[in-house]
Amino acid sequence: MPLAQHAVDVGTLDSQRVVQGDCPAVAVLRAAGAVFYCKTNQPQFVMHLESASFHGRTLNPHNTALTAGGSSGGEAALLAMRGSVFGVGSDIGGSIRAPAAFCGVYGFKPTSNVLPRRDGLPGAGSPAEMTVPATWGPMSRSLRDMDLFMGVFAAARPWREDPRLSIAPWTGLTTAAGGGPLKVGFMMTDGAIQPQPPVARAMEWARTQLQGAAGGVEVKAFAPLRTQEATRNARIAYFPYGVDEMRASLAASGEPFQALSDYSVQDAEASPTPTAQGLFALSRTKEQFWYDWAAHWAAQDVDVLVCPAFYGAAPRHETAFYWNYTALFNYLDMPAAVLPTPVVAGPKGTERYAEGEPLSDECEHARRLWDEGDFEGAPICIQVVAPRQRDNELFGALERLSNYLNVE
Amino acid sequence: MPLAQHAVDVGTLDSQRVVQGDCPAVAVLRAAGAVFYCKTNQPQFVMHLESASFHGRTLNPHNTALTAGGSSGGEAALLAMRGSVFGVGSDIGGSIRAPAAFCGVYGFKPTSNVLPRRDGLPGAGSPAEMTVPATWGPMSRSLRDMDLFMGVFAAARPWREDPRLSIAPWTGLTTAAGGGPLKVGFMMTDGAIQPQPPVARAMEWARTQLQGAAGGVEVKAFAPLRTQEATRNARIAYFPYGVDEMRASLAASGEPFQALSDYSVQDAEASPTPTAQGLFALSRTKEQFWYDWAAHWAAQDVDVLVCPAFYGAAPRHETAFYWNYTALFNYLDMPAAVLPTPVVAGPKGTERYAEGEPLSDECEHARRLWDEGDFEGAPICIQVVAPRQRDNELFGALERLSNYLNVE
Repeated sequence: MPLAQHAVDVGTLDSQRVVQGDCPAVAVLRAAGAVFYCKTNQPQFVMHLESASFHGRTLNPHNTALTAGGSSGGEAALLAMRGSVFGVGSDIGGSIRAPAAFCGVYGFKPTSNVLPRRDGLPGAGSPAEMTVPATWGPMSRSLRDMDLFMGVFAAARPWREDPRLSIAPWTGLTTAAGGGPLKVGFMMTDGAIQPQPPVARAMEWARTQLQGAAGGVEVKAFAPLRTQEATRNARIAYFPYGVDEMRASLAASGEPFQALSDYSVQDAEASPTPTAQGLFALSRTKEQFWYDWAAHWAAQDVDVLVCPAFYGAAPRHETAFYWNYTALFNYLDMPAAVLPTPVVAGPKGTERYAEGEPLSDECEHARRLWDEGDFEGAPICIQVVAPRQRDNELFGALERLSNYLNVE
Repeated sequence: MPLAQHAVDVGTLDSQRVVQGDCPAVAVLRAAGAVFYCKTNQPQFVMHLESASFHGRTLNPHNTALTAGGSSGGEAALLAMRGSVFGVGSDIGGSIRAPAAFCGVYGFKPTSNVLPRRDGLPGAGSPAEMTVPATWGPMSRSLRDMDLFMGVFAAARPWREDPRLSIAPWTGLTTAAGGGPLKVGFMMTDGAIQPQPPVARAMEWARTQLQGAAGGVEVKAFAPLRTQEATRNARIAYFPYGVDEMRASLAASGEPFQALSDYSVQDAEASPTPTAQGLFALSRTKEQFWYDWAAHWAAQDVDVLVCPAFYGAAPRHETAFYWNYTALFNYLDMPAAVLPTPVVAGPKGTERYAEGEPLSDECEHARRLWDEGDFEGAPICIQVVAPRQRDNELFGALERLSNYLNVE
């Protein structure tokens, strides 16, 4: 995030450079009185869930054998250690929400084009943005702070200088609810990867809390819809013209192409490099998925959706695969907040999956990772999601739910 | 525009087919009580300003030697003859506004993603949409009717089924103004093509009317900014992977590739067919233009902009070149309304350009077309434009201006 007179990079030496001026989002924060004192670590190419770069590797403060996540893993770890009161990340697949979830802090990915993202990353950007909307968003120790952040931006009316932005005043936590109980859908699994035991436990905890609420909340089941297809399409769209430039960039500095970088580009590398028509086809496929999800959401009849923020606890280093639970809502461009729960992963061997077969090869791999690892102390978060552009309604709902969900 | 049990096409025989159901926009209108009784003519590939297709050629009801425009030329002509009370068109370069201007009726191109456009044209659509936002919009005999139309759509809350749409309630003509006089910028020329004499006269008429208004209006000059570049980039973006399919589609039916089709694709054919990266570059170029125009608009300090709707009166058949004055606002995705004036082109030879050299080769061509033609009786409209997403503010301003601008 370009800050005047400071270095910016995409997690590679070759991309590092000092920028002269603040980008517009930083300018808004500076004008509002923000004090910048630290930039934090991120992954190679800011495109996976392990913040290991030429700066070194960020460890999870709750269990140093685990990753702090990425791309905003440095920020999440610092927040968890109370070394920072507030952070800003960017999110095109989970880069705010996954590290927040791994470190047990709050994170929010707004609908795209709510916050100014101009001059964000160094370089020319990527056609990924034409299919998978990216956005910046807040990371913090409380919902209240994220609400303040969003309000500061809306008060600056950034849409006057940036016609890409929606004209969207912020009412946030004060957003009035409609009549009747808040309808909360629980998607316990995405249908592709069953959550690891502590995540299942956190989801059960949240459901129990809300079921015990007075008449103001109606808890419903929410069925997943084609999430595997969506996240695979997103992974292809992230690198729609291949990764030759990425490999060349690393070759220039002599840095290794990390294993998780290999993982993140594998679907794109296995797909033909699209033409203009191919890129448009990716966009049309996404559009149809939006329509299908709009109908699906209407049929489920909920106001907000609660689901895992990740299939598991923070993964061990170099094993952070499968961003399905977050990337789904980038592909859908739905606002999504990550909230800590009181649930923490227990000592190795004390928690087991429920009976039943794995849902997929990925699910089986996630189980194996659980059996092999030791996640003791890893905090577990949940994710709360609203339909596209319903960012204010999401925060209004969170205010209503905060008494039951341990929300600060 | 797909209407249940009726044929739809893009102005070519090969594309014609009968659709089973209403598209969402038609469904909204039908639910609101609309009576559909007529579909109207459009150009080959709906991409130029002359509605000549396999159905025949639509003539301008004010002077049959002139075109009724396109792509919604059939609708504009029918409205002008009072054969219809209301019409709907689509606009990615001027297809609502140019025919409205040529026939002397009202037309409005909203910001994109305000009106539902799903299932609009037959076929797969075009990557043009990834760079140049298209939209549907109303055509009518009064501003009041267009306001009603927009209100009917907002009341249907189409964003619930279509997540692509902005959540945008309609206040339209009742939109409250801010304090102080309405600041109206006059862009008398786009800097590329000087308006033909009756258009210059209509602009002078409008400026004089508003200068004579009481304190509620402040008239200012508005300088053009790189309009030639914008409209050339738009023309390339319309056909980002060439026109081979278009030529093949005509070859299948034996229809000729019209001269104006040749004109509309010439810039795209002269440009290399872009890759995914090339398409993204087109999009980035547009994005930078948006930023530059936002700064330019702020520096000019106006609420709305008044400019020609076309460089001239309705052109003679087969000479409808240069959509610059409308396409600029597609490329900028700004809402723009076309309003009739009392000005009508005089008999041949009675009106001349002011002294001065042509601004460009295109300007010189426009002058030659004026000298060669006879435009007697052609009505002249003006265009009023607001910043992106300021559709309500545009209508609020038009309500304030209506006493001075002959608006029904």
